[in-house]
Amino acid sequence: MRAGRRPTPESQAGGRVSRVSVTPVAFRDPPLLNVVGVHQPYVLRAIVQVHTDAGLVGLGETYADQAHLQRLEAVAAALPGLDAFDLNGLRRVVVTALGASTGGAGASFGGMLDLSSAVDTVAAPFEVALLDLQGRALGRPVSDLLGGAVRERVPYSAYLFYKWAAHPGQDDDTWGEGRTPEQMVAQARRMVDEYGFGAIKLKGGVYEPRHEIETVEALAAAFPGHALRIDPNGAWTVRTSVEVADRLSGVLEYLEDPTPGIDGMAAVARQSGLPLATNMCVIAFEHLKPAVAADAVQVVLSDHHLWGGLRRSALLGGICETFGMGLSMHSNSHLGVSLAAMTHLAAATPNLTYACDTHYPWKSEDVIKPGVLEFRDGSVAVPAGPGLGVELDQDALAALHEQYVTCGQRGREDTAYMRTVVPDFTPNTARW
Amino acid sequence: MRAGRRPTPESQAGGRVSRVSVTPVAFRDPPLLNVVGVHQPYVLRAIVQVHTDAGLVGLGETYADQAHLQRLEAVAAALPGLDAFDLNGLRRVVVTALGASTGGAGASFGGMLDLSSAVDTVAAPFEVALLDLQGRALGRPVSDLLGGAVRERVPYSAYLFYKWAAHPGQDDDTWGEGRTPEQMVAQARRMVDEYGFGAIKLKGGVYEPRHEIETVEALAAAFPGHALRIDPNGAWTVRTSVEVADRLSGVLEYLEDPTPGIDGMAAVARQSGLPLATNMCVIAFEHLKPAVAADAVQVVLSDHHLWGGLRRSALLGGICETFGMGLSMHSNSHLGVSLAAMTHLAAATPNLTYACDTHYPWKSEDVIKPGVLEFRDGSVAVPAGPGLGVELDQDALAALHEQYVTCGQRGREDTAYMRTVVPDFTPNTARW
Ligand SMILES: [Mg+2]
Ligand SMILES: [Mg+2]
Repeated sequence: MRAGRRPTPESQAGGRVSRVSVTPVAFRDPPLLNVVGVHQPYVLRAIVQVHTDAGLVGLGETYADQAHLQRLEAVAAALPGLDAFDLNGLRRVVVTALGASTGGAGASFGGMLDLSSAVDTVAAPFEVALLDLQGRALGRPVSDLLGGAVRERVPYSAYLFYKWAAHPGQDDDTWGEGRTPEQMVAQARRMVDEYGFGAIKLKGGVYEPRHEIETVEALAAAFPGHALRIDPNGAWTVRTSVEVADRLSGVLEYLEDPTPGIDGMAAVARQSGLPLATNMCVIAFEHLKPAVAADAVQVVLSDHHLWGGLRRSALLGGICETFGMGLSMHSNSHLGVSLAAMTHLAAATPNLTYACDTHYPWKSEDVIKPGVLEFRDGSVAVPAGPGLGVELDQDALAALHEQYVTCGQRGREDTAYMRTVVPDFTPNTARW
Repeated sequence: MRAGRRPTPESQAGGRVSRVSVTPVAFRDPPLLNVVGVHQPYVLRAIVQVHTDAGLVGLGETYADQAHLQRLEAVAAALPGLDAFDLNGLRRVVVTALGASTGGAGASFGGMLDLSSAVDTVAAPFEVALLDLQGRALGRPVSDLLGGAVRERVPYSAYLFYKWAAHPGQDDDTWGEGRTPEQMVAQARRMVDEYGFGAIKLKGGVYEPRHEIETVEALAAAFPGHALRIDPNGAWTVRTSVEVADRLSGVLEYLEDPTPGIDGMAAVARQSGLPLATNMCVIAFEHLKPAVAADAVQVVLSDHHLWGGLRRSALLGGICETFGMGLSMHSNSHLGVSLAAMTHLAAATPNLTYACDTHYPWKSEDVIKPGVLEFRDGSVAVPAGPGLGVELDQDALAALHEQYVTCGQRGREDTAYMRTVVPDFTPNTARW
């Protein structure tokens, strides 16, 4: 059997891919601070639409850096003829389309991650689109294709950022400055009031650990009973990580990436009782064996955009269960297609017992028709419609694509953007 | 959401379970020898039929020992109302139905295996039946639900057994005695001629290692280019295992369970370059972490009957790939429903690169309508019809059920049966 071709002439339910489009879009983003710099005025994303000869369209969403877009386009050009259920065939198409260029990350993460293989990251949005198609062909939600929802609603976490009051040269945004513990409590208060979150994550690695600890302790005092996390993206040494873990051991549900690398995390884990979580030292299947051998992390943050889609993320979930690691979910800035996919995946993953990360409250624009994905009590109901259960608003897609065309950004450059304001800025990796 | 119940009143594609039957059957089996004794005159299996309110029927097949049958019946009684796509709900139903009795194996394997959890084994035939239903609802083969077939045909291995010429008191069967290397080469010749197998497995642990080595060497001489395996089911000490591995290192593709236990296998692995395979020391997800930590095995033999069905076996496949272990497939005596399920699973598992085991040539009866599962060049074509692609022959099912009722066997008792002929027989575990 050749990749993606069936011996029978007629199409089966779902059909075969007839046409694929990849549309880069840009949406506005506040100046959120992190270990490598600051978020630029726009987030770039790509919306994938996979059409089949059965008249169906499936949706996917992913990063939109230039190198990644080129790879997506190469796959899009090779997909026509693929059967909508042939996920193994999709991987073959991706491997072939990437050819010799599988090394290195085509998607950038502001310099925070270093992906050794692009196959899973490039395949992911197409896999989600095929699952969307499969669900539409069946008249069932994607969660049914993943084994069935074990929860009707998926809990998400508030995601706090230290931030500037405004992008340089612009008026203050509605969130204002986020620097002092008091300002961060106010930021959390607004998120909890508007969305009902029961978990709160603080993006750290921006200020000295003492300041960030004080922020966490202020949050703990202001939100008793809320699950708390801090993620300094590897800004600390092993020694500092252990000290912070000791100090916050009764306060945090887990400590995310205090220090870089599997060896560093393992050293912290040996000296600390606090569960360590990661979306930095375990971000691909090849990292699991060394991480398990070193007992480096106790919680893995899955992310279907990085891990090859929803089925591969379910595999990651099964691996975590088998090897005694907890499971949570990572988020980059994203739109509604991804939120729908994340919600179906989380709903169908029994051992995903932590509230998922999301950047959703930081954005004001989207490409999907409103109404399906609403936060209530910090959680999103699993969309009940066929497939992902969301529909594109083609006018909104066109407007955000136009914004991409005119915004001038073509990649994520947190450090370069920070240096336009702080010329001598260096990323904080293991600085403290 | 309550287990297996949806908030919407109407059924979706595939429907909900309306009725489940579990039918024990018996089929004739030759006197095949192994480490714990000899196969009895009949193999017991259970055929599961899951009906839904959409008018569909899904099929599964499993063991039929008394304790296992009782557990299957408890699950069958609790299944009505479950959505055909709710595989997570199935697991909840099984856990609830088993209640406090999850410990210990309800299915027996002649004393060879010791299962600490029955959940996966009890869930497996129902999971296969639900996937069969899903495929029928979609008009697509089960392999499509597992990510799509990566091969049109699935290669199987000849499975040689030392054997008596006849069951006590009966005429010689058509295979005759299997004891000397010459007789075993003749047995292999018949299987290769009739089925076209390109791989040959010898069930060992019956005679002293010297005799079994001579058999393997005779097979290697008679079938140059065929992949060879021997499986003594843990009959050897670590020292003997290493000696045999050295002697047969250029002859075998892998050595299966030479000695019992993860520690024993790890000791052999440290002293031998031959890949070690197992379906004895890694037979459940809980065994994977210690086996990986000890680097005990290089090839895991999956078996969807033990590992919780096809989706969980796909998870096992993903774990093997992630942790650098090879993947093959184990077989107990089985009928056509299982062969169809094994074939779909193997077809959709990219890293299942070894020929699968099967006892199929040893049986002369079946419960399915003939014509779909034919061996050609040692392989079986993936059934193209919806679901598993096989249909029950209700008359054959009734006849084999009647045979179950009258045969007198109610469990697998290789050792007790052997002792009716050799009163002082003791199982050969680590004897040599
Ligand atoms: Mg993180
Ligand atoms: Mg074996």
